Amino acid sequence: MHAFAVSGLPEVRPGDDLAALVGDRAELEDGDVVCVASTVVSKAEGRTASLADFPAGPRAREIASELEAATGDEKDPRFAQAVLEESVDLLMEAPFLLTETRFGHVGVNAGIDRSNTGDAELLLLPENPSESAERIRSGLDADVAVVVTDTSGRPFRHGQRGVALGWAGMPASRDWRGETDRDGHELEVTVESVVDELAATANLVSGEGDGGTPVVVVREFAFGDHGGSDALYREVEGDFVRQALRGWEYARD
Amino acid sequence: MHAFAVSGLPEVRPGDDLAALVGDRAELEDGDVVCVASTVVSKAEGRTASLADFPAGPRAREIASELEAATGDEKDPRFAQAVLEESVDLLMEAPFLLTETRFGHVGVNAGIDRSNTGDAELLLLPENPSESAERIRSGLDADVAVVVTDTSGRPFRHGQRGVALGWAGMPASRDWRGETDRDGHELEVTVESVVDELAATANLVSGEGDGGTPVVVVREFAFGDHGGSDALYREVEGDFVRQALRGWEYARD
Ligand SMILES: Nc1nc2c(ncn2[C@@H]2O[C@H](COP(=O)(O)OP(=O)(O)O)[C@@H](O)[C@H]2O)c(=O)[nH]1
Ligand SMILES: Nc1nc2c(ncn2[C@@H]2O[C@H](COP(=O)(O)OP(=O)(O)O)[C@@H](O)[C@H]2O)c(=O)[nH]1
Ligand SMILES: [Mn+2]
Ligand SMILES: [Mn+2]
Ligand SMILES: [Mn+2]
Ligand SMILES: [Mn+2]
Repeated sequence: MHAFAVSGLPEVRPGDDLAALVGDRAELEDGDVVCVASTVVSKAEGRTASLADFPAGPRAREIASELEAATGDEKDPRFAQAVLEESVDLLMEAPFLLTETRFGHVGVNAGIDRSNTGDAELLLLPENPSESAERIRSGLDADVAVVVTDTSGRPFRHGQRGVALGWAGMPASRDWRGETDRDGHELEVTVESVVDELAATANLVSGEGDGGTPVVVVREFAFGDHGGSDALYREVEGDFVRQALRGWEYARD
Repeated sequence: MHAFAVSGLPEVRPGDDLAALVGDRAELEDGDVVCVASTVVSKAEGRTASLADFPAGPRAREIASELEAATGDEKDPRFAQAVLEESVDLLMEAPFLLTETRFGHVGVNAGIDRSNTGDAELLLLPENPSESAERIRSGLDADVAVVVTDTSGRPFRHGQRGVALGWAGMPASRDWRGETDRDGHELEVTVESVVDELAATANLVSGEGDGGTPVVVVREFAFGDHGGSDALYREVEGDFVRQALRGWEYARD
């Protein structure tokens, strides 16, 4: 398996055709997985915004003061308003805002970026990253899969890592159910989230800074002869950590 | 960046020298990252066990009945005992056992495997995976980094993915603090967990089944000119999800 960045991509602008930008700069092959950082998908889709676009309502003002109290830093209630408008569920209010986006992803600040945003103050996540992935995919000549990625944190472990937000041309997961181990026993690991593993691979190559490499091609990834599934985001019903967060309140000591 | 499996590895036995097994089968180069599935590290270190080794105490019997009530499946209290003995903290008892291992990893069933275990009933995680990584590293001729991996689930997202349990010859994370984005602003993503991203990459190649490919070499990963950190496992103090789990109790409906 190989992973390489597509070089020479310009600053992406609203309305840009990402498939054309990539297709002109990379010799794609059938079976490649094209990993595209959500930041450039958002830019191409015009998902830039200003704080002034989000006049803060009472709930956002309440959240901002709670965050100020918890962190000791000044918080702009308009940013809290932007996060609320991008979200369908609020999992944590303090010491940071953890929400579920409209498309099901759980992340801090609804994934709204304030770095690598071009001229804009805010960069919102794509509205529907799997649709974005399909649009890019259908604009490319080779028969590839596309994964739209972001960088995001997680409980239990420090640091952030690449995750998939949307995908097209392949399932989200590789299904090992019913298969057996080296000794003929049934496997315990049943569903491998390959789009997240591909996003992590892409992140190793693209980095988080000013590298200018938002697109990474993974070549010769062998999905193998397995079933697949497209469920990536857990439902609240089966997500016990999320249920635990419901009753919980942050107390600064 | 390339990732390829080391082929021809035998069934690993207690006392086997993993460095020698790998060194004989791969032309390693300086700068390679050698990702080794914990399953073979555990086998080499003799971390196999039987349920009979873990006579269940009252706490394990209590947990097993709780798990039975929650899941409707029969549970062996000796397995709960094994998990307790491998753990320093219990985060969730039902509907599954989520604990912190002695070396800081939070995982279901303390990472004890019941598939790909060879002749043994149970395969416990290595006692100190970073020490295991260092031992393997020092037995190899090339100047490589070693990452000991496992496959593990997570909140919010379905499926499992490769994670790092231990590492040597490189820091766990790449530090982007103080660096700037394309527009000269400070970055928001500050700590990238590259060992987890490397483990995810390795998992795409090694798979979960009977492939017989527990070792994957990642070549030409460019860490770049960044600081690094070795903190991978969060302390309870900064882990709000973990704090929330403390107060929570599973209620079957
Ligand atoms: N060429 C180019 N690179 C960009 C652009 N925006 C961001 N990048 C690069 O894309 C990579 C990922 O950026 P990041 O901010 O981490 O994106 P995110 O993970 O999707 O939030 C980095 O190498 C950035 O320098 C752009 O408009 N054009
Ligand atoms: N050659 C060889 N492969 C093994 C052995 N044990 C497991 N594997 C392979 O190692 C890979 C990872 O196995 P898995 O059970 O997912 O390990 P884990 O992720 O560390 O729990 C699979 O390709 C297995 O077939 C062994 O003793 N020898
Ligand atoms: Mn982002
Ligand atoms: Mn990023
Ligand atoms: Mn395992
Ligand atoms: Mn595995």
